[in-house]
Amino acid sequence: MSSSVLLTDLYQLTMLQGYFEEGMAETAVFEFFVRKKPPERNFFIAAGLEPLLAYLESLQFSPEELAWLAETGRFSRGFIDDLSRLRFAGDVDAMPEGTVFFPNEPIVRVTAPLPQAQLIETRLINLLHLQILIASKAARSVLVAPGKLLIDFGLRRAHGAEAGLTAARASYLAGFAGSSNVLAEFDYGIPSYGTMAHSFIQAHEEETEAFLRFAHAQPDNVVLLIDTYDTEEGAAKVVSIAPRLKSEGIEIKGVRLDSGDLADHAKKVRRILDEGGLPGVKIWASGSLDEQVVRDLLGSGAPIDGFGIGSRLDTSADVPYLDCAYKLQEYAGRARRKRSEGKATWPGRKQVYRRSGPDGRIAEDLLTLESDPQEGEALLQPVMRAGRRLAPSPSLTESRRRAAAELARLPEPLRRLEEAPPYRVKISEGLQRLAAEVDARSG
Amino acid sequence: MSSSVLLTDLYQLTMLQGYFEEGMAETAVFEFFVRKKPPERNFFIAAGLEPLLAYLESLQFSPEELAWLAETGRFSRGFIDDLSRLRFAGDVDAMPEGTVFFPNEPIVRVTAPLPQAQLIETRLINLLHLQILIASKAARSVLVAPGKLLIDFGLRRAHGAEAGLTAARASYLAGFAGSSNVLAEFDYGIPSYGTMAHSFIQAHEEETEAFLRFAHAQPDNVVLLIDTYDTEEGAAKVVSIAPRLKSEGIEIKGVRLDSGDLADHAKKVRRILDEGGLPGVKIWASGSLDEQVVRDLLGSGAPIDGFGIGSRLDTSADVPYLDCAYKLQEYAGRARRKRSEGKATWPGRKQVYRRSGPDGRIAEDLLTLESDPQEGEALLQPVMRAGRRLAPSPSLTESRRRAAAELARLPEPLRRLEEAPPYRVKISEGLQRLAAEVDARSG
Repeated sequence: MSSSVLLTDLYQLTMLQGYFEEGMAETAVFEFFVRKKPPERNFFIAAGLEPLLAYLESLQFSPEELAWLAETGRFSRGFIDDLSRLRFAGDVDAMPEGTVFFPNEPIVRVTAPLPQAQLIETRLINLLHLQILIASKAARSVLVAPGKLLIDFGLRRAHGAEAGLTAARASYLAGFAGSSNVLAEFDYGIPSYGTMAHSFIQAHEEETEAFLRFAHAQPDNVVLLIDTYDTEEGAAKVVSIAPRLKSEGIEIKGVRLDSGDLADHAKKVRRILDEGGLPGVKIWASGSLDEQVVRDLLGSGAPIDGFGIGSRLDTSADVPYLDCAYKLQEYAGRARRKRSEGKATWPGRKQVYRRSGPDGRIAEDLLTLESDPQEGEALLQPVMRAGRRLAPSPSLTESRRRAAAELARLPEPLRRLEEAPPYRVKISEGLQRLAAEVDARSG
Repeated sequence: MSSSVLLTDLYQLTMLQGYFEEGMAETAVFEFFVRKKPPERNFFIAAGLEPLLAYLESLQFSPEELAWLAETGRFSRGFIDDLSRLRFAGDVDAMPEGTVFFPNEPIVRVTAPLPQAQLIETRLINLLHLQILIASKAARSVLVAPGKLLIDFGLRRAHGAEAGLTAARASYLAGFAGSSNVLAEFDYGIPSYGTMAHSFIQAHEEETEAFLRFAHAQPDNVVLLIDTYDTEEGAAKVVSIAPRLKSEGIEIKGVRLDSGDLADHAKKVRRILDEGGLPGVKIWASGSLDEQVVRDLLGSGAPIDGFGIGSRLDTSADVPYLDCAYKLQEYAGRARRKRSEGKATWPGRKQVYRRSGPDGRIAEDLLTLESDPQEGEALLQPVMRAGRRLAPSPSLTESRRRAAAELARLPEPLRRLEEAPPYRVKISEGLQRLAAEVDARSG
């Protein structure tokens, strides 16, 4: 997920030119948070910190980029020289990936000289937003399908290469078993899944022939797609070839259904397989799935063992973007606050404290100033100082374990797909006082 | 938009292993098309061909990727060797970028040895889908805001780096004036726009001071964001500093509103600017915009000159993915057809002919077999033969001109945001006959 430093909004550079001319480089504090919770989500999952830290560590303008910026005629020579020396040397405090969070809670706090903290805004949001979006969507499927194998199938309709890779990573973080995306295994070690498309069946003259040929070519990975012509006939063909394959030492692991009434087909196919002596053959479903459909299929008793979830996951189709922001909270030691209508923010350097109930489930958060410590678990932790990580980031497996533990601590109403009463996030008195002070001062 | 060949679904590779073992490498014909039209779109804009051709030209496995594939233990040595020699040496016929099209019409046809045509499926869809998605969304804003400057502001909430770049490219293709994305100017020459965020205002003690400092740092690019505290007060400050800046030779080009009731603020701000002797200062609007909001703002008489359209454009929020597919239509000289419930396709190598009415507007398309030429304009054109482009691709500017000409030829009902009666796409008798023949044969 490397990217050019030019992957940014022009206004970051024009503002930096302003700060350069004014010599404004004192310490700024920015925080990233989600402003509002759509009714389709009861919570969010923090994700994307590791790619963000990698971006910050590698941030610099190449000679070619600097030459081009100079050519545009938009910037002064002195400013371009200044950019050539720019690196990220700030501090980052953040919630670990996999942490459950709620609106207005900062996930990432950046403390750095103003130009550095400002320049990174666009890519920081671009990275965190999508990871959080997908992890939070995927977690809903994980919650409604305990014990089922969930696979990300959405690469083709993900919004570009990076979105496909991000969807694989974020859904795995949230508890999916893997992805169809081979690059996600190559880059991140995320298990990849897949066997055949309809075109494989169609390229052969006969469906049975296609099944046999595939089994011989991929004897350890025999999951047969049976809906190209007629799903139940496809299942019957699987039963008919199983003895021959077994005699060759090849086990049919599963069948996949990709169209029609999946619950009805799954029940009929399960019966055909069971009566054909294949009770161990798993049934996979795919095709226009999301957490609602998965829940309804399982609720109707459909004997489905695994789900390939595609476009609606990778595009977070019901909530394709979050109302999130990265806002200046303090500059040169003074708290700042945006007051634009409908977009006011809580000023100052903040911390989130979480308290659990006697049942071990999370019960209440408190949003407060960092300088005003409270009881409970402090969710923002120091991860980078002066541009260097304090410790190696947790592995994706470790973050995945954290997400699972966090989901296990969710109160029952938040686990449902329906909108729950909002989780309580209290605003500390100190923070409310500061907001009033800032309002009285600025304008 | 380069990407590893491993950015693909695992099933492409397991199918290729099957084809390799069977020696199946005869010519396959695949077509990419959109299956269904959502009610929120009356037409689509073809886009993404240039990135697709670049991908096909560069397609190959690196030694590192091959070594890794071997290590996974999933594939035979002979197959890996075969992959090491794999290049795309097929033919591509396609609608030029910027062409208007409708459901079931092939946009891109690939004719290549089966393994090559199959392997590229995932990335081909991934590239074309997003470009079409964004161009088709952006065209709606272009249609409702003639003469207005439209800028893509969505990078931060686009789904990753490539999505941000794609959104800039596809919206420019559809008629936007530019993007906030600096990399889109660096990579594609798309004009970039932008001046300041709220943080710039907040980092200063006084709003007026921030305006003046910015104007001095970026004297040729003075568009001031006036809603950080109070929009009308912000406008009054602009009026108050204009004479001083004018005396220094600095012209205020515009103001930007980013919150609140934009129509109401725009009217008040226009009056303040006009009465303050600044009738030439343009008003920009941004913040949660899309084509509906833009149309309503203009319909209400809001004096807005330009719009920055962000998240809803870059994520195509009302239609975050299209029901599109890349399907095998012919293998080894025989037409093929998928019959899965609700997903049946038209078989064979196809062509689309378009007929215009006496008013020059497009009137009717005919979907037919390539071997059955008809009257009208043939929309699919040869662009690649044996893996080489037949001619340099049109520049983005040329494609943008084509899109503008195509939009000008749209019949009135299709130009509206509301769902129009479907544009007529007739299926030729020859094609209907072939589909019946294929159905009678296979199964």
